[in-house]
Amino acid sequence: MIVILKPHSSEQQIRDVIEEVAKLGYTPHPIRGALQTVVAAIGDERTHLTLESLDALPQVERVLRVQKRYKMVSRESSETDTIIDVNGIRIGGENFAVMAGPCSVESEEQLLVTARAVRKRGATILRGGAYKPRTSPYEFQGLGKEGLRILDLARRETGLKIITEVLSERDVEHVANTADILQIGARNAQNFQLLVECAKSRKPVLLKRGMSQRIEEWLLAAEYLLVNGNPHVMLCERGIRTFETYTRNTLDLAAVAIAKKESHLPVIVDPSQGCGRADLVKVLCRGAVAMGADGLLIEVHPNPAEALSDGQQQIDFSAFGDLIAELSPFLKATGRILA
Amino acid sequence: MIVILKPHSSEQQIRDVIEEVAKLGYTPHPIRGALQTVVAAIGDERTHLTLESLDALPQVERVLRVQKRYKMVSRESSETDTIIDVNGIRIGGENFAVMAGPCSVESEEQLLVTARAVRKRGATILRGGAYKPRTSPYEFQGLGKEGLRILDLARRETGLKIITEVLSERDVEHVANTADILQIGARNAQNFQLLVECAKSRKPVLLKRGMSQRIEEWLLAAEYLLVNGNPHVMLCERGIRTFETYTRNTLDLAAVAIAKKESHLPVIVDPSQGCGRADLVKVLCRGAVAMGADGLLIEVHPNPAEALSDGQQQIDFSAFGDLIAELSPFLKATGRILA
Amino acid sequence: MIVILKPHSSEQQIRDVIEEVAKLGYTPHPIRGALQTVVAAIGDERTHLTLESLDALPQVERVLRVQKRYKMVSRESSETDTIIDVNGIRIGGENFAVMAGPCSVESEEQLLVTARAVRKRGATILRGGAYKPRTSPYEFQGLGKEGLRILDLARRETGLKIITEVLSERDVEHVANTADILQIGARNAQNFQLLVECAKSRKPVLLKRGMSQRIEEWLLAAEYLLVNGNPHVMLCERGIRTFETYTRNTLDLAAVAIAKKESHLPVIVDPSQGCGRADLVKVLCRGAVAMGADGLLIEVHPNPAEALSDGQQQIDFSAFGDLIAELSPFLKATGRILA
Amino acid sequence: MIVILKPHSSEQQIRDVIEEVAKLGYTPHPIRGALQTVVAAIGDERTHLTLESLDALPQVERVLRVQKRYKMVSRESSETDTIIDVNGIRIGGENFAVMAGPCSVESEEQLLVTARAVRKRGATILRGGAYKPRTSPYEFQGLGKEGLRILDLARRETGLKIITEVLSERDVEHVANTADILQIGARNAQNFQLLVECAKSRKPVLLKRGMSQRIEEWLLAAEYLLVNGNPHVMLCERGIRTFETYTRNTLDLAAVAIAKKESHLPVIVDPSQGCGRADLVKVLCRGAVAMGADGLLIEVHPNPAEALSDGQQQIDFSAFGDLIAELSPFLKATGRILA
Repeated sequence: MIVILKPHSSEQQIRDVIEEVAKLGYTPHPIRGALQTVVAAIGDERTHLTLESLDALPQVERVLRVQKRYKMVSRESSETDTIIDVNGIRIGGENFAVMAGPCSVESEEQLLVTARAVRKRGATILRGGAYKPRTSPYEFQGLGKEGLRILDLARRETGLKIITEVLSERDVEHVANTADILQIGARNAQNFQLLVECAKSRKPVLLKRGMSQRIEEWLLAAEYLLVNGNPHVMLCERGIRTFETYTRNTLDLAAVAIAKKESHLPVIVDPSQGCGRADLVKVLCRGAVAMGADGLLIEVHPNPAEALSDGQQQIDFSAFGDLIAELSPFLKATGRILA
Repeated sequence: MIVILKPHSSEQQIRDVIEEVAKLGYTPHPIRGALQTVVAAIGDERTHLTLESLDALPQVERVLRVQKRYKMVSRESSETDTIIDVNGIRIGGENFAVMAGPCSVESEEQLLVTARAVRKRGATILRGGAYKPRTSPYEFQGLGKEGLRILDLARRETGLKIITEVLSERDVEHVANTADILQIGARNAQNFQLLVECAKSRKPVLLKRGMSQRIEEWLLAAEYLLVNGNPHVMLCERGIRTFETYTRNTLDLAAVAIAKKESHLPVIVDPSQGCGRADLVKVLCRGAVAMGADGLLIEVHPNPAEALSDGQQQIDFSAFGDLIAELSPFLKATGRILA
Repeated sequence: MIVILKPHSSEQQIRDVIEEVAKLGYTPHPIRGALQTVVAAIGDERTHLTLESLDALPQVERVLRVQKRYKMVSRESSETDTIIDVNGIRIGGENFAVMAGPCSVESEEQLLVTARAVRKRGATILRGGAYKPRTSPYEFQGLGKEGLRILDLARRETGLKIITEVLSERDVEHVANTADILQIGARNAQNFQLLVECAKSRKPVLLKRGMSQRIEEWLLAAEYLLVNGNPHVMLCERGIRTFETYTRNTLDLAAVAIAKKESHLPVIVDPSQGCGRADLVKVLCRGAVAMGADGLLIEVHPNPAEALSDGQQQIDFSAFGDLIAELSPFLKATGRILA
Repeated sequence: MIVILKPHSSEQQIRDVIEEVAKLGYTPHPIRGALQTVVAAIGDERTHLTLESLDALPQVERVLRVQKRYKMVSRESSETDTIIDVNGIRIGGENFAVMAGPCSVESEEQLLVTARAVRKRGATILRGGAYKPRTSPYEFQGLGKEGLRILDLARRETGLKIITEVLSERDVEHVANTADILQIGARNAQNFQLLVECAKSRKPVLLKRGMSQRIEEWLLAAEYLLVNGNPHVMLCERGIRTFETYTRNTLDLAAVAIAKKESHLPVIVDPSQGCGRADLVKVLCRGAVAMGADGLLIEVHPNPAEALSDGQQQIDFSAFGDLIAELSPFLKATGRILA
């Protein structure tokens, strides 16, 4: 770490900082600058206590980290791309995955008709929420266990793998009985207890970026999964919150490229949540592929205008078919094969 | 709701929207404007399905809500300010509460010395984290149950009431055995399962605003608590995430005034987390009182520079004493009495 | 416009709003809802006074616009894509343009060597700042008129067209003597006097989006140019300011697709400013093409590490060559031809 | 500056960085850390070229500044608070100033009646826009020179000093003939040419913070004024752009305290623009005083509902009177005297 002292700090104040740095286990290395003194603190920042509390001293202006805070998710810990095996469907490397289905599981008929439609058009994984985190307690909260039963039925009939969100530590075990991939939503991106519980399940996990989560914090949330024993992690960019009002969220496509530079984990893009607008889903999918994404998570509904949740961002079967057809040259240009 | 159609929509398209509005249980009321048609949908938006999914229709430009989405937390449901009784300490109305203590419980000695110091200087409620949500899995995660034991000890010795954070649904019951107030942190502001579980405990709850939570969403999170049977709720403004770098968060003091206009619940301000800078805590406390806050949640540590978490935003005993002393005229000017 | 009244407004209060709406020239149309009354105000919002000031009345909860605020830049005003003719280079429609060159013009040698290099590798337009808007007055402010002379020299030698930024109303005339395209930077995106002056020059204008400008506001800034007689306008997405720290700005690629839906103007992407990181420029260019951009504005420097401004986001000649080569399949997939 | 190298950089790569640092005029000081090497570059960062361009080298991870970038506006350059003398009205130190008046000058009658009303209730400076920067070209743009004439008339009649916005370099001279204080608006906060021109006028300048301007950038914009010879500068916090929708802007009251710590310049708060809501103006004024502001800039209109611009944030005479009356104890508690 680098401790920057205020201009005109006294010799005694500088010595106090040096001592405090040493006390916390680092080797202090003072540098007298033109106007200010800086103390470099040598030591592994990830195994020592942070020095950021030194900011509490009046002579300290700022404390800066040198090292990245994540280890196991970092590129340095694995030169090759991690490939997630979802019961035979491979995601990562050259394998590109399309996950599609309704925002919420609403009925047996709605899910089955959607499952058949998306499988026919190129999806290998079926999405559908049984437990829905809703901003208002008066909104549709999902079918719960009945939703899981329907998802299981769809899997048996179509052979599609299942991804579904888990909201509660207590549900991890029974959701993991149905799901092939556990989805952790944006609102729970820093619900560390839920992360630890999902880690224990050893199931593949898709971790959405929080609404105002910095990339560093997103990778650290993934680190919670790896440190707790689950290496089967996919990151998912789903838009961040900004001041813009023409979109519900601002899809940060640069974050896809950065996450892939910083980490060896696959990165999935959610274009539906990403902007909250059905009319943009197709073009955002192209952009995601061009930026190096390893897969897509797309909301598809038989009749979006009557959806029980988020109809405005769901596309119908025909739009989904067009979308997949038009992705081909982009996948080819980026060396990807549809899983 | 108001459904705005695109210019040049055909008669058939307009009729389709009118039918869809009726089908979803609202009374449609079309208005032909100069360039665009608008369909007003009459009905209680909080008991009907949302019409926002109609955005999926190509002729629909936007769907706008008319009503506020919260009921029980709203000013309209209670003309008088809610007063929370924390085992004899009243918060709200003219009663102003100071909650103070370390970011984390680190040891028996650290907590007891702090508890005595803050009680002597005017606090009636002791804060201290036993379970700590930390961005990185390598950071100090709190003492857990041992921390709760120490908090209980401090209560017995000093008579201070205890506020401490609960991170997990599974911990609610045993944390509630020690805590007088359950704190829900910013990262869990939309962890609805945790909210429901805290509601069941019937304990007073302090609900922090999420890092990028709109005021409407914050009030809807509180609504989850009330709807599930717990009326003892305090809101807590703790800073939102913006682009500014001189502060860790941007304390949104206007949100205090707005929350008090929109809702009957007490509003507490956390100036420590609010900016992440110890040197601003005193002035932010003044601002909070002036803006109508009902209480403060202040991080106080015997030696901030050696704190195990967030030392840069904790103040020492002497600064805390000065702060309380200087608050007097502001409390008086706003008609408040230190609880 | 739609004026939403508060619940429990009195009949007199409702009548007052209706009268005020009529007084301001709209036809009022009251709708009595389940809980609240709404007054629809019929009339062209773009030629009448706004009703937003009615918010000042105690019984008014909110005033909502129905119409889009831009006219001449809107899709409705022109079904076909606008094509800008830059002295023979066409931008828009199927014509894709690459503009490249250094952040700042630093010397005759630096610019000429860069101009030759980018022309050879596929650029048709040369960028280079003679007047630089710098955050600090102590930073390099550009060579001014000498910079313009060097740009002119590069044009004569290479035949490349010139795009350069204009910062001051007073400079528009003489900058327009050298520039083929006038660039209006993000900091001046709402400097309306400068917009009007650039409109008068009748030169093609590239209008960057402001750092925290909503898409609506960006299009309204472009409207200032068209209303004042200059239809030769290109929009340029260059990243918005968010909380993220791994990038200098968050490139809002969805804004490209939205601007092209809402408007008939060409949209250019600046990947250099967009993230502020040289290592991301190539992948962002791919993403921009995939999202439907009509051109790119790329910072290229002979030796970025010694650049006088923004070296961290400039790429060298070899990286620029690779970038252009790799764009081919993306251009083809989106039906574009390199201008 | 501190140059952080990537882990596993080779000896040659480290030497290259050291050489480059020396070449740019700093004394390099390498520190070999546990995992990474850091090169401290010793030298005055404000008079040397930035090293940030070194980020372009593949072995460089980040370049960090040590020094603050502003000099003349900084606390270190002046221990005492700057007091601005506006033709006899002093602002700063213990002198608190109230500037009030309509958003726009609409007519002789409107301004004169407002001027009399605000003077009677405690204002000493009259605000009113003659040139209005409007998001849309179809909105009221102000009365221009006629507006200045009316402001001058109001000054003669009431003795109030005049503050009015200047939008164009070309207008500075004639606006300065009428205005006692030149106001630079948020949209022009980084219109450096306008800043330089206002500096030349030697008139007191009120510099609003830009909509997404960091505090550092705001102070650097002020530095442009001081460096160009005008020390009569007031900073003005007017809200920043965030994701919140209940307010038009988020008033960053912590920025008041920070600006006063970092700088010797007076800080004014604009509560009208700050939230864009008339109903919050009074409480925000209290908050501003409590946070240490040196003055207020308040929009007051005889009939806000019919204002030609921004009626929703203007208050009427009676509300203004109440506001001033209720400020007394807060001014007293902060040791201020109404100018």
